[in-house]
Amino acid sequence: MFSKAEAGKRTSVDFFITYSKGSVFVSKIAVVLTDMFEDVEYTDPAHSFEENGHTLTVISDEKGKELTGKQGDAKVTADKGIEEVSEESFDALFIPGGFSPDILRGDARFVEFVKRFMYKDKPVFAICHGPQLLITAEALRGRKITGYKSIQTDLKYAGGNVFDEEVVVCGNLVSSREPDDIPAFIAKSLDILSKSIN
Amino acid sequence: MFSKAEAGKRTSVDFFITYSKGSVFVSKIAVVLTDMFEDVEYTDPAHSFEENGHTLTVISDEKGKELTGKQGDAKVTADKGIEEVSEESFDALFIPGGFSPDILRGDARFVEFVKRFMYKDKPVFAICHGPQLLITAEALRGRKITGYKSIQTDLKYAGGNVFDEEVVVCGNLVSSREPDDIPAFIAKSLDILSKSIN
Repeated sequence: MFSKAEAGKRTSVDFFITYSKGSVFVSKIAVVLTDMFEDVEYTDPAHSFEENGHTLTVISDEKGKELTGKQGDAKVTADKGIEEVSEESFDALFIPGGFSPDILRGDARFVEFVKRFMYKDKPVFAICHGPQLLITAEALRGRKITGYKSIQTDLKYAGGNVFDEEVVVCGNLVSSREPDDIPAFIAKSLDILSKSIN
Repeated sequence: MFSKAEAGKRTSVDFFITYSKGSVFVSKIAVVLTDMFEDVEYTDPAHSFEENGHTLTVISDEKGKELTGKQGDAKVTADKGIEEVSEESFDALFIPGGFSPDILRGDARFVEFVKRFMYKDKPVFAICHGPQLLITAEALRGRKITGYKSIQTDLKYAGGNVFDEEVVVCGNLVSSREPDDIPAFIAKSLDILSKSIN
């Protein structure tokens, strides 16, 4: 989170990572994604984030990889490979659900990338199985969190304070359980993005 | 685990749950399974168990359901629905991996079914993501365990003593990490089955 002054400072130092678009500040959001993501858990928030002027960079194990959602409805091309990116180039992180997060957390590079956002207290938006990456990053102790019902015991064991709610906000960390929660997830995520620079 | 005497007693009381086939005692093994299981993690152990005279009952959310592995190679028809079965009818439990265990643990009936085998100290064989069901059953505290690399942090948080070995035996609990570990997994599982009644 930056104060207005810090946001201003970042604008000059960090080559417009966060910049003003008309009268609205917008953010660069990193998305970690691979095959078997839950289609609408990527597409719906991505659409809303972009509609609000934020930019998304889809990061997978390699640049240009074509990723397919588990329903087969959504196809997404990776903008960057994990080797090419650094947390420092982004304002926020978005982790869609499905089986994608469990596949990604088998790769230590994604775990380390995610861990950096949590360490820096940057906005992190995780839905469904998304929080699995935060467990492996060992970043949930004492945090309010929710996730898909099958992972709620994992979240509790990881030290999270688990709430079975459509959206749970803990500082800059926003989490939701399932596709039905997407509208609440988007609303709180957009709220955090606006607050983080205003 | 039964002593020979207890196995004998069960033979008469429990309608040949464990019975003698020639000179070899064989077991009734429950398998919990749904779509997206890791094909060879079901087919290879199932083949070996049957070759050794043990019988398998595939249990899913409903009887007769056709289940497809995540590689699309294996198709299995469910013998029983979870509503029809009780732990008392089986000598052992087998939990193949893939995404099947995570789907099953979203259904409390499977979690309760698995928990009963752990409570009774019956043989439980879990490979890859199979131990996810044991986490949700809250049955791993203090147990030696392994699992697919992506769930090893979950296992640690669940109170397990996690070893990154091809097969880990803890009493009647046998666990392995991935398809490459299948031969060791089968060998130790068969060993437990023979010991449990000899």
